[in-house]
Amino acid sequence: MAHRPEDPLPTGPASTEGVWELSEWDAAVDVTVRRLRAYVEDSQLGGSRVTSRRPPAELAQSLSLQSWIREGGMDAGALDDFLETYLSEGTRLHHPGYLAHQCASPDLPAALGDLIHGVTNNAMSLYEMGAAAATVEMAVIDWMLDKVGWAGRTAGGVLVNGGSLANVTALLAARARAFPEAWNTGVPRRTVLLAPASCHLSITRAAAILGLGSDAVVALPCDPIGRVIPSAIPEVVVAQERQGHTVMAVVANACAPATGLYDDLVSIGRICNPRGLWFHVDAAHGGSALLAPTLKRLLTGIELADSVIWDAHKMLRTSTLAAAVLLKDKTDLDRAFRQEADYLFFDDDRGGPDLMMRTVEGAKAQLGLKLFLNLAWRGEAGLGRYVAGRYATAHRLWELVRSRPDFETPFEPQSNVVCFRHRDAQGDPKQVALRDRLIADGRFHLASSMVGGTRWLRATVMAPATDEQTLHALLEAVGLAARQVRDED
Amino acid sequence: MAHRPEDPLPTGPASTEGVWELSEWDAAVDVTVRRLRAYVEDSQLGGSRVTSRRPPAELAQSLSLQSWIREGGMDAGALDDFLETYLSEGTRLHHPGYLAHQCASPDLPAALGDLIHGVTNNAMSLYEMGAAAATVEMAVIDWMLDKVGWAGRTAGGVLVNGGSLANVTALLAARARAFPEAWNTGVPRRTVLLAPASCHLSITRAAAILGLGSDAVVALPCDPIGRVIPSAIPEVVVAQERQGHTVMAVVANACAPATGLYDDLVSIGRICNPRGLWFHVDAAHGGSALLAPTLKRLLTGIELADSVIWDAHKMLRTSTLAAAVLLKDKTDLDRAFRQEADYLFFDDDRGGPDLMMRTVEGAKAQLGLKLFLNLAWRGEAGLGRYVAGRYATAHRLWELVRSRPDFETPFEPQSNVVCFRHRDAQGDPKQVALRDRLIADGRFHLASSMVGGTRWLRATVMAPATDEQTLHALLEAVGLAARQVRDED
Repeated sequence: MAHRPEDPLPTGPASTEGVWELSEWDAAVDVTVRRLRAYVEDSQLGGSRVTSRRPPAELAQSLSLQSWIREGGMDAGALDDFLETYLSEGTRLHHPGYLAHQCASPDLPAALGDLIHGVTNNAMSLYEMGAAAATVEMAVIDWMLDKVGWAGRTAGGVLVNGGSLANVTALLAARARAFPEAWNTGVPRRTVLLAPASCHLSITRAAAILGLGSDAVVALPCDPIGRVIPSAIPEVVVAQERQGHTVMAVVANACAPATGLYDDLVSIGRICNPRGLWFHVDAAHGGSALLAPTLKRLLTGIELADSVIWDAHKMLRTSTLAAAVLLKDKTDLDRAFRQEADYLFFDDDRGGPDLMMRTVEGAKAQLGLKLFLNLAWRGEAGLGRYVAGRYATAHRLWELVRSRPDFETPFEPQSNVVCFRHRDAQGDPKQVALRDRLIADGRFHLASSMVGGTRWLRATVMAPATDEQTLHALLEAVGLAARQVRDED
Repeated sequence: MAHRPEDPLPTGPASTEGVWELSEWDAAVDVTVRRLRAYVEDSQLGGSRVTSRRPPAELAQSLSLQSWIREGGMDAGALDDFLETYLSEGTRLHHPGYLAHQCASPDLPAALGDLIHGVTNNAMSLYEMGAAAATVEMAVIDWMLDKVGWAGRTAGGVLVNGGSLANVTALLAARARAFPEAWNTGVPRRTVLLAPASCHLSITRAAAILGLGSDAVVALPCDPIGRVIPSAIPEVVVAQERQGHTVMAVVANACAPATGLYDDLVSIGRICNPRGLWFHVDAAHGGSALLAPTLKRLLTGIELADSVIWDAHKMLRTSTLAAAVLLKDKTDLDRAFRQEADYLFFDDDRGGPDLMMRTVEGAKAQLGLKLFLNLAWRGEAGLGRYVAGRYATAHRLWELVRSRPDFETPFEPQSNVVCFRHRDAQGDPKQVALRDRLIADGRFHLASSMVGGTRWLRATVMAPATDEQTLHALLEAVGLAARQVRDED
């Protein structure tokens, strides 16, 4: 039965090219740890620019990327130089002036989790490829399920690479419930998702990726600041059904990415559940409020969901990416990847579950470990205090904004997201120019949102180093930039 | 315009809960680096079990997972104890006896890349979130495009979280070419993919995820060891078209996951190109042979592809996950995520590209950095020598197997994957039992494959520490286990 390739390949003696020289590791890790320590220390103190973004061509040259790739030969000394530039040309998420995107200021235990993964690479999608890693992930998932209100054997979940992929995975489960045969025979036409226009763009993308088409996302009626009006849902459902459409899922925000506002999950859940409508809660950013006793009421009703996503790389302070897909009924997740149901093993002679049958990704990184280490260090209470602290600091920013007649703000924040603008920068383009000017100045990094058809500056308080003093300095800097932008004409 | 939530949230003074205590970092990183150093040293020497997989419940208890999550309070000393158990209950990819799955034995520069990501979290899907990280990724992608034979401005690509997601992304581009309106209006029925049955399971999964259905994957005729018979393709295409089906793509293996055998890319490309058939090459595992002058002819014809995927977390020795999606025409990738084409910025006032418009994931980890650091350290020549060394070692294993009458083997290897079995363990269940026995013994970790309807042991030579001595010891151990399994009845 032996087939020979027509043209044998060159062979040779076994070599051990590529084993770790431990002295090389020692020197390189020493340089890296030292650079990163200084980076965090300096960032937390606000001592450097919060963000720098030279053009790619210029950066590629200053980092000598092409010659390193072709020639190799980097050693610890060269790494030291490389890191000096690399670390300065990016965004400092530990900086008090970092107020831009919903992206974690990573905590130190999680960073060590990344290093452990980098060395061990226990890609535990098969249990035999990383028993401890898989076990840690399951413990973290069980804890998240419990926080959502789904303790017990029926619920289940998995960690995946980010909220967008988590939404794809959850909606794949919803698709499988609505159309069990879709996995094998394709998606039927006339299938819709109901979601507020304020939902994350990954919801619409998921509809398109999954073959429904982005047009299948039907907008739910919302109030002027983008929150779902629950009482309006039944009418939308009836109208869709009258057109012969199947409503595959109803999506709610907890919280909305642009505004940080939470939908009324109780009311939405009470409408979906008796009608058998799949209720999906995108709690990517806001789910972590479950850990703060003073905030968890924002998520009341989340237990009525069929699926929830919740990112660790936002308020649970792991690096990007690590997002949980949580299902009230874990068989929905198993059915989502229907083809391989036969390969699912639990508590059999393999000794543990093969999680790859629950994810789009084939191999799995040790995502659970980094979240676990943050929890083990801080405890759920410590992480809850962090969340409450960031939400309170955002609220304080809103109070300061509201107290000043030169600023305006569209709503009181419910999370760590605050929208506001300065009256001197009239019109949307001036708000954008104001943001660009602030970023160029280097002390603050803000984002921007459209709310109610108007562009606002958006601050998202993520860095633990952002304090009262930062907020005052921010408003001064915004005021100065607004006057400069006004005077430019 | 200010809306107030009905029930104001508790607020308080700004806190700085969660800033890094640098002394805490110093102690914790010291423990982690020391443990990892010992782990790699011991693993490379083969001094410990290559894999251990106690049942999850037992492991969860010995790691005290529940109480750590609830109570917190871990410090450097406790981390030391935790890591002792954690690292011992997994799979040692640096161990010479690690011969199981196509999963990298990570190199040290890439591991440092993970640490840098863990601390800095420059989630560079928006250029402003990580200018250096995005620039590094683009340099790495350009280098890969050049290796494939697509140097120039027309080709493009992106790094994503793994080969499965890379296949989804590439096939999304193929879908967009065949049905530009599918993103908005959904996938039409009667669409098929042609692929050998030996393709990675993610191809069929991708068809199902993308709404085509797994039944849309039509098997290409293959030889007895699973390689596509190129001359048979036109007939399959005609038959599909006669049934009113649109052929969205033809998929080839480079190499096949179960056997490590390469399809004849030149012949397949020459059939696809003049017919306008999208040609997708899954080079997740085997693409790295492009770096070895003695091996790159295995991939001759890859330049005829429309899309290629190529994993760094296999033979380029980064941790899981890091996979490239490479497109001969980058507009195909931009069209794949059609909805957001307006948001794509290149060389405009943002200073760099926003890569999120090319991926399923929303935020992006610094995947390029870990691959770059391996390249910068070893150079493409050094990584090429590693690949050639692992391929040669696998070939040497095959020679040893072939020289022994008690073993049989279905084909001469073309890569670092070798299939074989011992004649004393007759029948598929005995081969599985033999594998289980080997794993329990602890010196070797093998996988297993179905080839030509029969189960074989499968060795994939990944660890640089696997040498001639390992191969002899392996065959002795397999022989012993086979006799034990035989005598069990």
